[in-house]
Amino acid sequence: MSRIGVMSLGRAILIGGGPGAWDLITVRGMHALQQADVILTDHLGPSHQLDQLCDVSAKEVIDVAKLPYDRQVSQERINELIVSHARAGKIVARLKGGDPFVFGRGFEEVEACAQAGVPCDVIPGVTSAISVPGLVGVPVTNRGVVHSFTVISGHVPPGSPSSLVDWHALARAGGTLSVIMGVKNAAAIAQALIEGGLAEDTPVLIVQEGSYEHEQSLRTSLGLLGQTMKDQNVKAPAVYLIGEVAGLRV
Amino acid sequence: MSRIGVMSLGRAILIGGGPGAWDLITVRGMHALQQADVILTDHLGPSHQLDQLCDVSAKEVIDVAKLPYDRQVSQERINELIVSHARAGKIVARLKGGDPFVFGRGFEEVEACAQAGVPCDVIPGVTSAISVPGLVGVPVTNRGVVHSFTVISGHVPPGSPSSLVDWHALARAGGTLSVIMGVKNAAAIAQALIEGGLAEDTPVLIVQEGSYEHEQSLRTSLGLLGQTMKDQNVKAPAVYLIGEVAGLRV
Repeated sequence: MSRIGVMSLGRAILIGGGPGAWDLITVRGMHALQQADVILTDHLGPSHQLDQLCDVSAKEVIDVAKLPYDRQVSQERINELIVSHARAGKIVARLKGGDPFVFGRGFEEVEACAQAGVPCDVIPGVTSAISVPGLVGVPVTNRGVVHSFTVISGHVPPGSPSSLVDWHALARAGGTLSVIMGVKNAAAIAQALIEGGLAEDTPVLIVQEGSYEHEQSLRTSLGLLGQTMKDQNVKAPAVYLIGEVAGLRV
Repeated sequence: MSRIGVMSLGRAILIGGGPGAWDLITVRGMHALQQADVILTDHLGPSHQLDQLCDVSAKEVIDVAKLPYDRQVSQERINELIVSHARAGKIVARLKGGDPFVFGRGFEEVEACAQAGVPCDVIPGVTSAISVPGLVGVPVTNRGVVHSFTVISGHVPPGSPSSLVDWHALARAGGTLSVIMGVKNAAAIAQALIEGGLAEDTPVLIVQEGSYEHEQSLRTSLGLLGQTMKDQNVKAPAVYLIGEVAGLRV
């Protein structure tokens, strides 16, 4: 039964790495990286500055964003890597951009661990949907103006059969909208929101590469969002914030 | 002009402290606390374990949650304290629970600094609306199930003249709902969402004192939410998550 004894030493930790700057991970997340034997990194989050957070020479660092795969296989392969290293007795840190449970497929990794009998902890992270506007001084909420905000993955266009978002209902909900992974579909999203009742002159803030060295932000309106994205050649990763707060300045 | 010279040394830093556990603040937030001369703390966030994050004996720590005030005066008094200490040449850390811009009146503090000519930085934090469910293993999003989530302050009941939330629209929007500051109004909120079209058997997760030592979580349904809050004597701070994800378990 020695194999079971070895297995029981390994475990997985899903870590939210925050929006990108290395020091926007939590203290708990940093400590977990320092304890880890193996670190699986993504292309977002603090992966590019891992050496600020731990002694990388003492770890096996696997960049899962660079593994050759198609999308369907990749998550399975990542799950396999987490489980196999944990079963080999390692402490496996799965470092993800943002928060592990905000569009990060984190729950699938938790499920894979559970199915394999691998203990798995989750350490929350700062999500880019809130923090990236905040870092340029724009709040998702403001007293007396808005009591709610919605974070939406814009990777599926409105009206698509696979869309799970009622954009017309969101237009009426009265809150700020923060869209991530929505550069490509920005024009269609703006149109759906305008059809749903939002005014064309609703302020919009766009932030590209938030918290990174080359962070860029710009202001536009909902009616001009699609055109602005094109004209300014906005590229992922980007967040856009729609609503009265997006017009706030100090 | 020596006064201006002294003034220019001081500055303010708004820090998101996270949901409560001391190590769920960001690394940047911890470093800012270590640099600070004065720390203004709230009753939430890591205020109760500040000594884990910095040498408190070297700082002036002011618990603004304990200042005698009525609600209207308090924010003005907090703004005054930030500005006056910064003007006296101090580095003032304003430590807030969660994220400074999620229902935290953070923007009012930023505005107060701007009006006073005090430089002010903002350091994002992990919001309880996402992290508290996550810490008990429940994600706000899950692939193929939900592409959006809405965070709502439940301090104003549905139908109140001061409500800024269209609960019926949110019921139709198709996303997870995460309600904070909504214990008192839980029954009314559940009723408004059911009237808006959400099923009575929609799963709900309630977490009280998330990330703190006495964290408690329980599961119920939207139809039973109000009664569960009463029967289980749920008290603030609490988060409740409404939607299919709230029924997930591993």
